[in-house]
Amino acid sequence: MELLPYILDLAGTFVFALSGAMAGVKHRLDVFGILVLSFAAANTGGITRDVLIGAVPPGAINDWHYLGVSLLAGLITFYFPAAITQRWSPVLVFDAAGLALFAVSGAQKALVYGLNPVMATLLGMLTGIGGGMARDVLLAKIPTVLRAELYAVAALAGAAIVVIANMLQLPSPAAALVGAALCFGLRVMAIKYGWRLPVA
Amino acid sequence: MELLPYILDLAGTFVFALSGAMAGVKHRLDVFGILVLSFAAANTGGITRDVLIGAVPPGAINDWHYLGVSLLAGLITFYFPAAITQRWSPVLVFDAAGLALFAVSGAQKALVYGLNPVMATLLGMLTGIGGGMARDVLLAKIPTVLRAELYAVAALAGAAIVVIANMLQLPSPAAALVGAALCFGLRVMAIKYGWRLPVA
Amino acid sequence: MELLPYILDLAGTFVFALSGAMAGVKHRLDVFGILVLSFAAANTGGITRDVLIGAVPPGAINDWHYLGVSLLAGLITFYFPAAITQRWSPVLVFDAAGLALFAVSGAQKALVYGLNPVMATLLGMLTGIGGGMARDVLLAKIPTVLRAELYAVAALAGAAIVVIANMLQLPSPAAALVGAALCFGLRVMAIKYGWRLPVA
Repeated sequence: MELLPYILDLAGTFVFALSGAMAGVKHRLDVFGILVLSFAAANTGGITRDVLIGAVPPGAINDWHYLGVSLLAGLITFYFPAAITQRWSPVLVFDAAGLALFAVSGAQKALVYGLNPVMATLLGMLTGIGGGMARDVLLAKIPTVLRAELYAVAALAGAAIVVIANMLQLPSPAAALVGAALCFGLRVMAIKYGWRLPVA
Repeated sequence: MELLPYILDLAGTFVFALSGAMAGVKHRLDVFGILVLSFAAANTGGITRDVLIGAVPPGAINDWHYLGVSLLAGLITFYFPAAITQRWSPVLVFDAAGLALFAVSGAQKALVYGLNPVMATLLGMLTGIGGGMARDVLLAKIPTVLRAELYAVAALAGAAIVVIANMLQLPSPAAALVGAALCFGLRVMAIKYGWRLPVA
Repeated sequence: MELLPYILDLAGTFVFALSGAMAGVKHRLDVFGILVLSFAAANTGGITRDVLIGAVPPGAINDWHYLGVSLLAGLITFYFPAAITQRWSPVLVFDAAGLALFAVSGAQKALVYGLNPVMATLLGMLTGIGGGMARDVLLAKIPTVLRAELYAVAALAGAAIVVIANMLQLPSPAAALVGAALCFGLRVMAIKYGWRLPVA
């Protein structure tokens, strides 16, 4: 993997791990439980994608940097929970950036492994939202992504841009940039204006 | 895959997706959450089987028709929930048909991939019940299959017929028919007469 | 696999299956639900490890002895729940032995499949704790390992010994013995003295 995407990937891992650790602190888990939630929230999306497309062992299992970054985020949250809480609004912005990055990189990896366009888009979305779902299932809660403000749709839009550009043979770095910007923009607007999907 | 089994497989996917979507409506999920539950309820059993036997990418990930059928069922439920509720009893019959089909096709696929008879039977059952378990875990509930009327046992019986016929080298289409009929019949009788397994 | 490790592995499966079945009895599951929990508690850790390292089909899917031992433990618990409850304290000791064994054998298998030392240690731990996590998720509870007395840490220590010895090219049977003894000792002491990890 090239350096810039790799660093961005680890940055996404870090912010998602923060969200997992925060949820663990709130549920009074011990330090080990907090670290498990950090790792699960940051890496389950990518691990599931890799198992489904046959990229085994998954990146987050084969390369210990993902573990390291996840544990770092977990330990920071454990020792300085207040620091994270007070900065949660900036963290939400980082989380939107992580979502954008994972959706785009997840769709790209699925295309490389030969998935068809529809399912590559879906796997991009899964890469973005899978970690949060694992975090919530481990806390015995219904995943918030199933009823929160626009979250998965933002990931879906970002992933779709990457896949459509690939079908049209447009340059892939530009597509990644546009896809990530669209996902990030949608998510930030959804937080700001409380955009939600309809309920039956 | 031949045409008839394929169409039956998609029909099973459709009815299982209806059950997932209905559960999502009941828990007040948004439209995205409902579609996720549709897909999860219809496809998790088959996806898990495929990952375990090494058929990667799983059928439901590689072929977007499964996604399409799942989303269709989800959208119908979202826009016309009353229509589904009022027809739930016929839907239960379709669900029994879906269970029968998945149990039989799941066992056949496991045999093709060289699993031994005992585990092929189990994977047939898992194909039938896995989706409903995923649906319930995502809703933070104990899977109903763990304490409902005879459900898994019907799937087990159907899968066992397929596997035993394979061991005796009997013709596979006839075995599939008998297995599916047995599973379907057991399940419909269990619903009608409230058959249950003993509790400790 | 050689005979002694294999027998020890099945013994670990048996005690973990007992813990799953007991939890099922407590939650008033039917006999099928109890057997599912027996199998899940005993085998999910190993199955997840095998899927992640690419050892497909996983051992517990390919070899029906794991299923047989799990079902035996489940049926004993179903028919004689009081016998298990009254002996729970010895069972806890067996559970510690199962944990020790799974952590050590899980780390060894991950090393054989070429995982790096850090992740092999982690997969050893996952092999030990994964079953209990699956059991609790299926019961819609937060996994106790995320907040119980020292449990995962004991598994981690045992797995680490195996991995470190492998890096130093020390003889592997001795390392397995020391690792298992360390894990077992830590876990028994944690139960006896109520050792816990700090909470944030």
